[in-house]
Amino acid sequence: MSNAPRISSFQPPKRILLGPGPSDVHQRVLEAMARPTVGHLDPRFSEMMDEMKTLLRYAFQTENALTFPVSAPGSVGMESCFVNLVEPGDKVIVCANGVFGRRMAENVKRTRGELVLVEDAWGKPVDPHKVEDALKAHPDAKILAFVHAETSTGAQSDVKLLTEIAHRHGALVIVDAVTSLGCVPLLVDEWGVDAIYSGSQKGLSCTPGLSPVSFGERAVAKIKARQTPVQSWFMDLNLVLGYWDDAKRTYHHTSPINALYGLHEALVMLAEEGLEAAWARYRRNHLALLAGLQALGLELLVEESARLPQLNAVVVPEGLSEPQVRADMLNLHGIEIGAGLGDLAGKIFRIGLMGNSSTPANVKACLTALESVLATQGWKVEPGKAVAAAERAWA
Amino acid sequence: MSNAPRISSFQPPKRILLGPGPSDVHQRVLEAMARPTVGHLDPRFSEMMDEMKTLLRYAFQTENALTFPVSAPGSVGMESCFVNLVEPGDKVIVCANGVFGRRMAENVKRTRGELVLVEDAWGKPVDPHKVEDALKAHPDAKILAFVHAETSTGAQSDVKLLTEIAHRHGALVIVDAVTSLGCVPLLVDEWGVDAIYSGSQKGLSCTPGLSPVSFGERAVAKIKARQTPVQSWFMDLNLVLGYWDDAKRTYHHTSPINALYGLHEALVMLAEEGLEAAWARYRRNHLALLAGLQALGLELLVEESARLPQLNAVVVPEGLSEPQVRADMLNLHGIEIGAGLGDLAGKIFRIGLMGNSSTPANVKACLTALESVLATQGWKVEPGKAVAAAERAWA
Repeated sequence: MSNAPRISSFQPPKRILLGPGPSDVHQRVLEAMARPTVGHLDPRFSEMMDEMKTLLRYAFQTENALTFPVSAPGSVGMESCFVNLVEPGDKVIVCANGVFGRRMAENVKRTRGELVLVEDAWGKPVDPHKVEDALKAHPDAKILAFVHAETSTGAQSDVKLLTEIAHRHGALVIVDAVTSLGCVPLLVDEWGVDAIYSGSQKGLSCTPGLSPVSFGERAVAKIKARQTPVQSWFMDLNLVLGYWDDAKRTYHHTSPINALYGLHEALVMLAEEGLEAAWARYRRNHLALLAGLQALGLELLVEESARLPQLNAVVVPEGLSEPQVRADMLNLHGIEIGAGLGDLAGKIFRIGLMGNSSTPANVKACLTALESVLATQGWKVEPGKAVAAAERAWA
Repeated sequence: MSNAPRISSFQPPKRILLGPGPSDVHQRVLEAMARPTVGHLDPRFSEMMDEMKTLLRYAFQTENALTFPVSAPGSVGMESCFVNLVEPGDKVIVCANGVFGRRMAENVKRTRGELVLVEDAWGKPVDPHKVEDALKAHPDAKILAFVHAETSTGAQSDVKLLTEIAHRHGALVIVDAVTSLGCVPLLVDEWGVDAIYSGSQKGLSCTPGLSPVSFGERAVAKIKARQTPVQSWFMDLNLVLGYWDDAKRTYHHTSPINALYGLHEALVMLAEEGLEAAWARYRRNHLALLAGLQALGLELLVEESARLPQLNAVVVPEGLSEPQVRADMLNLHGIEIGAGLGDLAGKIFRIGLMGNSSTPANVKACLTALESVLATQGWKVEPGKAVAAAERAWA
């Protein structure tokens, strides 16, 4: 027998989370997660599950019966869509304009689908013309998959248009809404989205670890018509549904009870604010941050028409050390901002204003800290100019 | 736009959790989960991850470098073992003596392994003679998989002996320790276990949603020698490890930060108590519960030599309504006990004394409540006799 290690309770530092997620979690959500654990088959917990589905349907703007949170991070929401909808040999067109489009492509390969990759530059939205061309060149494509809000670049693509094009060519769509849900308009039913997944830790401002998903009728029909079993036992919707079905509640896996308390509370808060009010808040605070960044002499990677208000990819100017900027922001000011990923590593940093993180106070704290951090690297900044620009934008 | 639903915050009832898991979560763990969320790449969080691995190595009694919690429920820990260790065509012998052995078999099929099923009656331990025969009949078997503590029946199998037999025949072992970790002796290194998975919500008394796993050298070598990609992107250990590796911390997925705070605290508490002390506590409280159940005229399903102290499968006597017993326990006494699963549905109920649920107070509360519930169904019980029997067992 080895001896017990002597390790103390972990006391995390208090940060302001202005990266690409997780976003700041409200005290109400943290308190909800600390409520007493009940069983996953408790009748009172079942009632909570029903409410959860109602709340998620509102967030997604859908009536889809098959709307629930997968008991795992957003990557599992993504994989759930692919393993259920793609059968070996199915041709799938994936639009890749960043890390998460590429991850979708990787999922197609691992489900033994036939991958057709449509690439766009990182920082650009998905080009609908290229998509239309790919669908014409591959009339047997069963699925078009793309990312609504590319977390790695801050670029937004046109879900409504891309879905319309896919349907015109007889393909279903899988949409990654990890960074878009709750932050920008997303109308699943009106736009006809077939399958969509998100995460709990961005626009919903809950802790990470859950992945809301929703599947429409065409997607369900494709899953029911499968000729081969779903390769994942955990993600097999035929099984998961027995648990999330109001009438059944058949044991499948033990769901993460307290994490679901947190997501429920976060969704109650979203419903209290209202989607339109949240979208407007994001827009306002984004424009103020942008004004401040420009006053600091910084520029965004993404052109105006495709910018996400909740995730700002800032181009690192010549002469600045990107890792040092992030380290100083965190260590001297307690503010987390994100690094560039993949092709954009070292070239951008990412400032998120998601969920509860999108507040005027955070915008001002971020600009003030940036001003100070940049100054230590010899960047010429006029004290107070950035915050003043933000204030003007709000006015 | 559909209107926002008016739904209030969820207030769960306070239960005593004496089912097959989740077990009662200590206030210290709940409070840990309510601490401020930090980023998954925060240097302070990295320190916590290192401590987590040290704590898990103690719980598993291993020095395995590859020891960490999968960011999803125990079923994903199970699936992670199979998708990484089984390649299409690999012959895998699975021992099934309950629901979870069968789930292992299902995993072999979905990873396109060649399944050899060795069945034992539900409630019996895995028979080593049958296992030896199967390994002799299938000398090309690559893996033997079995459940240490069958959650569906309360039966314990001999991990040390089964592992020794498997190794003698050149097969690796995958062990399900979901219900055993922290509750009964489990010595991963001493017994030579190759791959093992557990859950957070049983012996560790954390909330559900995380699955500690550990892989030994032989397992790692098999994974590194794979000729085919792992079918799951999320569970691919080659990728997950980049994040859990002390030196790398490469982004893979956003880990469930606050759930990990909770597991860290639960493991700190286990280290404070000490494994041997915990095992002894389980044993004591099990014997007291057993004495009380026998005083009520009830019997356990599993023979004495294979009984799990943390999970007691009680045979439902003729004339009792099993669903009514459970409903009354929950609704009149606030105590959750578990139903029988699969082949044992309606034939047993399961009383768990796991983690913080294993206390004298809970044993007495359970016996007192059962006495009252059984009496309402005309079962002849002498008031106070059960608790008195338990008290004698403790004395």
